This record gives sequence, C-alpha cells and structure tokens, in this order.
Amino acid sequence: MSKEVKAWGATSPETTEPMTITRRAPDDEDVAIDIKYAGICHTDIHTIRQEWGPVKYPLVAGHEIAGVVSAVGKNVTKFKVGDRVGVGCLVNCCRECDDCKEGEEQYCLNHTITYGGTDPKDGSITQGGYSQYIVVDQAFVLSIPENLPLDKAAPLLCAGVTMFSPLNHWKAGPGTKVGIIGFGGIGHIGVKIAKAMGCEVTVFSQTESKKELALKFGSDEYIATNDLQVFDGLKRKFDMIINAVSTKIPVDLYLASLRRDGTLVNLGLGGEGLQLSAFSVSLGRANLAGSLIGSVAETQKMLDLCGEKQIFPEIEIVPASYIDEAYERVLKSQVQFRFVIDVSTM
Amino acid sequence: MSKEVKAWGATSPETTEPMTITRRAPDDEDVAIDIKYAGICHTDIHTIRQEWGPVKYPLVAGHEIAGVVSAVGKNVTKFKVGDRVGVGCLVNCCRECDDCKEGEEQYCLNHTITYGGTDPKDGSITQGGYSQYIVVDQAFVLSIPENLPLDKAAPLLCAGVTMFSPLNHWKAGPGTKVGIIGFGGIGHIGVKIAKAMGCEVTVFSQTESKKELALKFGSDEYIATNDLQVFDGLKRKFDMIINAVSTKIPVDLYLASLRRDGTLVNLGLGGEGLQLSAFSVSLGRANLAGSLIGSVAETQKMLDLCGEKQIFPEIEIVPASYIDEAYERVLKSQVQFRFVIDVSTM
Repeated sequence: MSKEVKAWGATSPETTEPMTITRRAPDDEDVAIDIKYAGICHTDIHTIRQEWGPVKYPLVAGHEIAGVVSAVGKNVTKFKVGDRVGVGCLVNCCRECDDCKEGEEQYCLNHTITYGGTDPKDGSITQGGYSQYIVVDQAFVLSIPENLPLDKAAPLLCAGVTMFSPLNHWKAGPGTKVGIIGFGGIGHIGVKIAKAMGCEVTVFSQTESKKELALKFGSDEYIATNDLQVFDGLKRKFDMIINAVSTKIPVDLYLASLRRDGTLVNLGLGGEGLQLSAFSVSLGRANLAGSLIGSVAETQKMLDLCGEKQIFPEIEIVPASYIDEAYERVLKSQVQFRFVIDVSTM
Repeated sequence: MSKEVKAWGATSPETTEPMTITRRAPDDEDVAIDIKYAGICHTDIHTIRQEWGPVKYPLVAGHEIAGVVSAVGKNVTKFKVGDRVGVGCLVNCCRECDDCKEGEEQYCLNHTITYGGTDPKDGSITQGGYSQYIVVDQAFVLSIPENLPLDKAAPLLCAGVTMFSPLNHWKAGPGTKVGIIGFGGIGHIGVKIAKAMGCEVTVFSQTESKKELALKFGSDEYIATNDLQVFDGLKRKFDMIINAVSTKIPVDLYLASLRRDGTLVNLGLGGEGLQLSAFSVSLGRANLAGSLIGSVAETQKMLDLCGEKQIFPEIEIVPASYIDEAYERVLKSQVQFRFVIDVSTM
C-alpha cells in the first residue's frame, strides 16, 4: 500500500516547510525504510535553488539517508526487517548499459537520482530523505555496519563515498601522496578515509584557520594557499590531488604539483568551470579528471571500512525546522562539518 | 675533434639563412651522424619566433633528424659506422630522477632538448638538425630499420612518436575506438599508426575537405565539425580522443564523446589554453590529459612498427633555401603533409 508520510520540502527556491508526501507501495524488489537521519548536502541547496537547472516544486531533498528496514518485498534477499540501512544519491539505473553492467551505475546515463528524478517504477518524481519513510529497490540499499552510529553514517552516503570513490578508482593506498583541496564537509571525511587507506595526506586550504583540526583529524601536512608562492616548493610531489571545493582554484599550479601521470580529480561543480594552460597537462603527462559520487559497491566498501576503522564524520544534529538556517550556514562554511537532520522532529 | 659544419639557422625571429656551426668532438659515449634529412616541425616555428619564450640567436632548429653514422666513441655498443640512425627532440637527460629511471625521460625536468637547450657535456647551446652533421650521446640515438626510407623516417622522430606515445601509454590496440582531431602533419601519421595498432579510427576535421585523403590513409570514419550538432550523435562513443591541433577546440563536446573513463589527450600547445565545465569531466569520469613527444624506447618501438607495417608519412622534400617559405605554408596548412629538408642542398 502507498503511504502518506511526513516530510520537509521546498515549495520555492527560497524556503523549506513541513509537508506530507506519498510513498509508493513496496514491490517485490523493494525495501521500505523508516528514516532516522538525513544529512544536508550542498547539492540539496544547488538543486532547490535551481542553480543546476529548473526543478518541480514541491521538492523534498536529501540523499544521505540512514534508517531501519520496516518491510521488504518477497524477492528481497539482502535485507530483513530491523536491519540498519542507508540510501545515497541514486535509487535506480537502467541495468543494461556498459556502465551498469560494469558496476559503475553512477555513470549510467539513465540512472534515477534520489530526489527530482523520475521513478521508473511508477513514473512519479522521486522525493528524497528529508522525510520519515522511503521505499527503495534493494539494489540501491546499503547495509550500515553495527558499529557505525546511524546519525554519523548518514553523511557517508554521499560525502563519504564521493571522496572514497576517486581514492579507490585511482588506486590510492599505503604510501600514496594525496592532496585534498578544501577542509569542509567533504574534505574532512576525505582526510579520515584517505588516512584509513594508508595514504600520506596533505590538506590545502586558503588560510591557516583550519590547520589545527586538519592535523587533529589525521592530515600529515597542511598548506595554506593564500600565498601562491607555496606552490614553488610542491612541484611533482603528489600522486593525486582531489579538489573538494566549488570555488575557483589555481588549476595550473595544482597540476604542476602532481608527479608524472598524476591526477587532479575535480569534485567541485561550481559555475565557473576549469581553465588551464595546455602545457600544464603536457609537461608531466598530468590528468585532470572528474568523479561523480561512487557506485553502490564502492559505497558498501566505504561503509565497511568506516565501521572497521571507526571513522566518523563530524556532525551537528539539527531539527527539521532548522533546515533553512542550516543552508545559510553551509553557504557561509559555518558548520563543523556536516549537518544531519533528526527526522523524528518533523 | 670539434668540427665546423654547414647549417641553416635563424638569426632573428623573421628569417633563416645559411651558416656554419661548430659541433663538439665526440666523447666515448657519442655517435657522430652525417645528417641526410631533417623534418620541419611546427615547434621549430614556435621556437624561432619566440612564441614559447626568448631564444638566443643564431638558432639552428630541427628535431626530426635522419642520417648515417660516421664515427662512434669507444664505449658505443649500440651503433657502428654506416648504421642508419635518427635523433628526435631530446639529446640528453639527468638519468637520476624517477622519470629517467622509469624510461620516461621526456618528462625529466632536466632533459636537454635538441636545439636551444644547454648541452650538459660542454655547456654550449644545442643546435638542431637543419645541418649536415651532429654529435649525440648513444642513449638518444635511434636505429632506423632498413625498410624505412631515411627521408620518410625523419618526421616519425617527432610527429610520429608524438602520436604513438599516447596510443601506447593509454593502451590503444585492436578494437580501441580512437578519435584524432586534426588531419595535418601529426594527425595524418596518427591515423596510419593507430590503424597499424588495430584501432578503429575517426578523424575530426573542421570541414569535409580532407575526407577523401583521411579515408584513403585508413581512417574508418570522418567527421566535419563545422556544424557542432554532429556531437549530438557521438555521446560516449570513443575510448580516447587525441587533439593534434593547436587552435581552440570545443573541449566539453569532445569530453562528452568519451566513454566512461576515456581520455582526451591534448597535444596542441596553442596559446589560448583549455577551458571546460566541471560537469564535463565528472559525468563520465572523463580525463583530460596531455602528452609530450615520447620516450626513446617508445620512439624505437614506433620506428620498428612503421618498418614492419610499411607506414610512411606523406612528405614534400625541399631544399634548405625553401625553409622560410615552407614555414609560411605550414602556418597556412598548405602542405600534404610534412616538409623534409634535403640537407645536401645546404
């Protein structure tokens, strides 16, 4: 049976408010989840404010979802009632293209995003995790290890895997020299995950202000980039550098800081785009690449790693009524380091 | 003994003229070469005209050098008098850095370029192949297979290996779908080499004018890009695309034409640089990379392949007195496809 559930969504680009939404009845492959926590991601703000294109209101954001299974369809083999589970940025994919067959469904051109997508099961517009209940195909449900608290697990479903996926794909491991640009919601999780994978980690941030925390969370080095001359001493130092900020960065200087065949992975999807000199990629056969969240398999691998190594993002738990204010603080980088909504407050 | 030899060099950015230059006496590791042919590369023009920075005149350009060994130092084991040999863009490197030790000396930060560099053996400014004689350390001398004519071998030493190296590095082979942007001096050799490696090749050129020749030289497909709408049908089609032009290209459209994890390799070192949307690298985890000539080992591998498969660049042989006019025709793309100087005309 379909179900009316409490949610908190946007009716315009300006504000969010309490509302009731309808979730479809679970089919044979579906998992019904009582949501406990939902992380706030910068993407939620970009989307609601239509910075990435027009959206249909009302829209319930949220793709960092942690909860408990309340029902399963008859073909569901991976989960049972009472299991602690998560849902990230995707809830379906075409399952037929090369990307899907190769387990990289985040790159499927017809995947279904968790909110604002079109649900292939009933044609409705998908609504996200700022809500007390959701129904998701088992292929897109993650198992949250017993030793990971649900509130702290939530931000791992997007921010965590967004950092883990490029580290995993480009084979970072013991001894890999990794630079992380930005020490915010994504960057701080990246430091912890990269350290857990054995990497040597350097944080790049504009000022010295985050140095103490970055070193506390495991970063081996910290470089303030407000004086660009620091790059003079960094030529050919890093195997990979991951850009976790959306503001403009000096692309050429970071490319020059890569070892031969190194990769600058851009995660930030800011409006300005990326500009570089052709020499910057030629001189050291440097690569400029992007990366988009991560696969379901990578997400599970990351959750298991975080459970095993007891890696938790730093969070601030807020009630649903605080969402608009939280957005403003995210935009001003005034959060250490990730907001998580307690959905029982809806 | 050092030797005075005939050459043809630039005394200013404007013109080249006949001159006499001094070559150092061969040391124990050196090979002395009677040059027969020297290719004209666009880099020669960029350098002489100081488009890449100031140079010291007189400057003798030329880094596509084919000739015959006339003497060898006592430690030279790879070559003997009478051998057919070539020299490309580099004549030395530091031999101590990771790049050198890993056989990728083209990325050594202290390599010595064939002209305009500082020769580590005597401190002189290196002078290139528009000359009748040169002395080069055996480590930077290539063997030209018997079945490769010397005149046609010359352009392979730069243009050939510049295309071969990215194909080799990114593991192109049977079935690899390769796009080549530009069908000029470098692009046309690229088509032949990529086909010899078993790739499926598509040429991208601005107009239909080069279609017949591109297909004749083995390209499987030809796409005229003056109407950008052609890109609508190319999404996720290519494993790699190599840009062999220096003019501005629509980077985002080419990145969207790559399969997941594909690479756009930029060879062109034009002044405008590269600009792209961050989404273009994120959506398919696309890579934008550069590549710089190739290693000595790759150059030999490419020469051997060209001999075995009988692959020759299309050349127009010119006398030394024609160099200035040849430069003008290169700049107007009025050559099919590569000028080679007969140095006996000096």
